[in-house]
Amino acid sequence: MKKPSTLFFDVNETLLDLGFLKEKITSALDDRGELVSLWFSTLLHYSLVANTIEAYKDFGEIGVAALQMVAAGNDITLKKQQAEAAVIIPFKKLQPYSEVRTSLLVLREQGFRLVALTNSSQKGLEEKLEFAGIADCFDTLLSCEPVQKFKPAPEVYNWAMTTIGVLPENAMMIAAHGWDIAGAQNAGMQTAFINRPGKEQYPLVPEADYVVDDLSQLASVIK
Amino acid sequence: MKKPSTLFFDVNETLLDLGFLKEKITSALDDRGELVSLWFSTLLHYSLVANTIEAYKDFGEIGVAALQMVAAGNDITLKKQQAEAAVIIPFKKLQPYSEVRTSLLVLREQGFRLVALTNSSQKGLEEKLEFAGIADCFDTLLSCEPVQKFKPAPEVYNWAMTTIGVLPENAMMIAAHGWDIAGAQNAGMQTAFINRPGKEQYPLVPEADYVVDDLSQLASVIK
Repeated sequence: MKKPSTLFFDVNETLLDLGFLKEKITSALDDRGELVSLWFSTLLHYSLVANTIEAYKDFGEIGVAALQMVAAGNDITLKKQQAEAAVIIPFKKLQPYSEVRTSLLVLREQGFRLVALTNSSQKGLEEKLEFAGIADCFDTLLSCEPVQKFKPAPEVYNWAMTTIGVLPENAMMIAAHGWDIAGAQNAGMQTAFINRPGKEQYPLVPEADYVVDDLSQLASVIK
Repeated sequence: MKKPSTLFFDVNETLLDLGFLKEKITSALDDRGELVSLWFSTLLHYSLVANTIEAYKDFGEIGVAALQMVAAGNDITLKKQQAEAAVIIPFKKLQPYSEVRTSLLVLREQGFRLVALTNSSQKGLEEKLEFAGIADCFDTLLSCEPVQKFKPAPEVYNWAMTTIGVLPENAMMIAAHGWDIAGAQNAGMQTAFINRPGKEQYPLVPEADYVVDDLSQLASVIK
């Protein structure tokens, strides 16, 4: 496979551990930690409902709505303001996985151009990468916001590649989500799946070109 | 509001109780019943991933893939064949909620044309409504299959209305899912949300025109 020139990184769960956010969500859901994955899945589902009915909202706002739905559906009392407090700020206070900063710097030294490409808002993206101490590792920070669609919509990947000025065959999407890998494949990009805890590829599309445990392993295999 | 001529009914959870299916899913997931909602949410999410990347598959097949993902993501060993056994047949062996048959007959007597409109396959739809003993209550049974997109894609509602020969303002979508209500609104239909256990409207779109506890209540308010 041709060595890519540009690496596009998904952010939430791929680079950043949702641990702190999950604590806040658990607490908002009456300590029912088993509902946290349902909340995130509901958020992802409704991000695509928003795509489908052309009703784009900030990813965090959909996260708040999803939390209200999961709470109400499980007989948990949660005011909108409480749901906002559990989602909006904590989503920007996430730690990177331990190998992330070093590996991004190694990849950059290897000559790759590094781009963050996220469903979070542009402001949210900048704030969360600053907090995580990795904003300076990237050449460009891109949110799907200007497209008003969420990944895996092809428009998002196509817009991102056009913005950077890279052809799909020279671009690689790196993500810990099966749906993001599937979307990038659909847009003609190379793909690498990061095998984070609890994350799985979608069995009904081809495997990612690379499947690795973390970014340091990725740096070894694509150099 | 103008009285609609034609009522389109979502099937899974709106008419049919997923109880039996949930038992099978729970069993496949090492009795971890708390993962069943995550499975269904993952199925719905990936049905829209399929829409987005134009990779339509049978809803049941996506259900199997989602079950494999939830199992693997939670360190549960589950072979593809076991996942299929837990999803495909049980999805066709569901009981209707208690008021459904009587209420459908009442609505029909009131002069409404009744249409089932589901994300399940055409064959699956026919088999499950036969098993549930309510197939004869409908004028027409429609699956999204010919459109190769899942609800809430506008194409599905538009195709269904064209097939029946009804204008959006004379059509009402009846569903227990916020995303289905949002999709029908987007297609210009009237809407009624059935407040089934654990089901919630999507807070970021307008409320449904009618919100009722069950179909008998619907029959009272729209007659």
